[in-house]
Amino acid sequence: MKTTPHQTSSHGHLVIIGGGEDRKHDKAILARFVELAGGPDARIVVITAASTIADDMWEIYDQAFGDLGVKQRFHLPLVSRQDANDEAKVRMVAEADGIFMTGGDQKRLLAIIGGTSLDAEMHTALKVRGACIGGTSAGASAMSGHMLAQGKTDLLPQKGAVSLGAGLGFLHRVVIDQHFSERQRLARLLSVVAHNPYLQGIGIDEDTALIIERGRGIEVVGEGSVTVVDGRTMDTNIADIRDHATPELIDVRLHLLPAGSRWYLPTDAEPGNRPMSPALREFLETVTKRNPIS
Amino acid sequence: MKTTPHQTSSHGHLVIIGGGEDRKHDKAILARFVELAGGPDARIVVITAASTIADDMWEIYDQAFGDLGVKQRFHLPLVSRQDANDEAKVRMVAEADGIFMTGGDQKRLLAIIGGTSLDAEMHTALKVRGACIGGTSAGASAMSGHMLAQGKTDLLPQKGAVSLGAGLGFLHRVVIDQHFSERQRLARLLSVVAHNPYLQGIGIDEDTALIIERGRGIEVVGEGSVTVVDGRTMDTNIADIRDHATPELIDVRLHLLPAGSRWYLPTDAEPGNRPMSPALREFLETVTKRNPIS
Repeated sequence: MKTTPHQTSSHGHLVIIGGGEDRKHDKAILARFVELAGGPDARIVVITAASTIADDMWEIYDQAFGDLGVKQRFHLPLVSRQDANDEAKVRMVAEADGIFMTGGDQKRLLAIIGGTSLDAEMHTALKVRGACIGGTSAGASAMSGHMLAQGKTDLLPQKGAVSLGAGLGFLHRVVIDQHFSERQRLARLLSVVAHNPYLQGIGIDEDTALIIERGRGIEVVGEGSVTVVDGRTMDTNIADIRDHATPELIDVRLHLLPAGSRWYLPTDAEPGNRPMSPALREFLETVTKRNPIS
Repeated sequence: MKTTPHQTSSHGHLVIIGGGEDRKHDKAILARFVELAGGPDARIVVITAASTIADDMWEIYDQAFGDLGVKQRFHLPLVSRQDANDEAKVRMVAEADGIFMTGGDQKRLLAIIGGTSLDAEMHTALKVRGACIGGTSAGASAMSGHMLAQGKTDLLPQKGAVSLGAGLGFLHRVVIDQHFSERQRLARLLSVVAHNPYLQGIGIDEDTALIIERGRGIEVVGEGSVTVVDGRTMDTNIADIRDHATPELIDVRLHLLPAGSRWYLPTDAEPGNRPMSPALREFLETVTKRNPIS
């Protein structure tokens, strides 16, 4: 098998951050991202395309990753789809051990990189080379195939209040929301799941990361929690109610995974001895699935 | 069978209101309470013991029930347990078709009437005579056997943050919270359920009522929703974490019942043809159960 210079031995990790991660003090989440990318010698590339203040964003992460001892850190400024198909820029991704997407607007991020050579190279980085991909806030929402694009609800879920778009697709059959507890977004996430029971909703708090090791398991790091909303067995009347009405939702399953939660799929070599609920196991199987390069 | 003068033909209803019910405009919830008590000719008694401004409370409900055409409306002021064992006052409950408990502090309400003759007479009213019992805010929380007494959480559930007390016990195996969406109390209710998976959590929004017809079914009336949190099949690590930490919660079931939701247990005479999830059916069986007079 032909290997690239920067292939690592891991399965490839996703570090999905709910926004507002600490960048000035212990930087626990960013430190973990660096570690999963290979440590201080890793090449880290920062994609600021979600933001309209890309240089300011880069300054923040340049400082933070520098403080964490990363010497090879690079800004990848992308303002157009031409940029995202530019050979030199794509090569920066091809040579990166860690790729970090900042906050901003996930629709802007996708409009610039969705379906480009750079997008494809990120999939290769994760799935072939085992690179680590991180994203915070908009950069977190962008990671799933179905992306929570925009929309808000009042206190309760509402029919038709939230719209989805096509995300980067590093994981499938889920939808990700961020700033979750802080902005009281359960009603918004339930609105999505009510319409789309095919998707499991993942709500990530600020300064909190859901870390996914492909093929293996998950871990929650930081200060808050990850909330999972699973509507696959739900009953709902959403098809029959008027727009903006609140749907009846029966039998939604909810998991709350605070920082420190770690769950791994049992393997033949190391059979798990911690009992796991079937619904949680299915969640693990969904998010750790090694989807092909799309 | 000996009947009392005010026996009605119903099974006895509970009207459990999340606070802030409209008292000035269409008064939909209070109108429904009056209807379930027997209409404008019903005798309505208002218990203000939860409040330290009992006369002001009475003034509000005197006006509202008067506007709804109720002629026989009475204030039952109770400031001590002696009051709640006073024969004349207990007789007012014995003769009432509708008994309404205002907001205030549920601990104060229970300290005054818990375990008194008046408490016992309320059970007789509901269970023997089929009277209607309503309660809003503190008066709602007081209805269950295990009562959410006090405590609050930050954005996430916390171990040890909420304390229970002994409520009036019109229904069992549940705990009731009010002002639910408005005060973002899901974390508080999940805190209770995490500690007490024996209890199903019921969160009622403002200007919203959960109406329970004993032995028969439920209905949600008003402007908001009723949220049910069922932790009976949950896994949690709450026993092993430190105080105030956030527990891991796996497989909590959540039902959202917006205003307009109506669910009835199928009977032999009228078998239900609307499919019902087993978890919802168990919730219905729990809350409509005809507990004996305790």
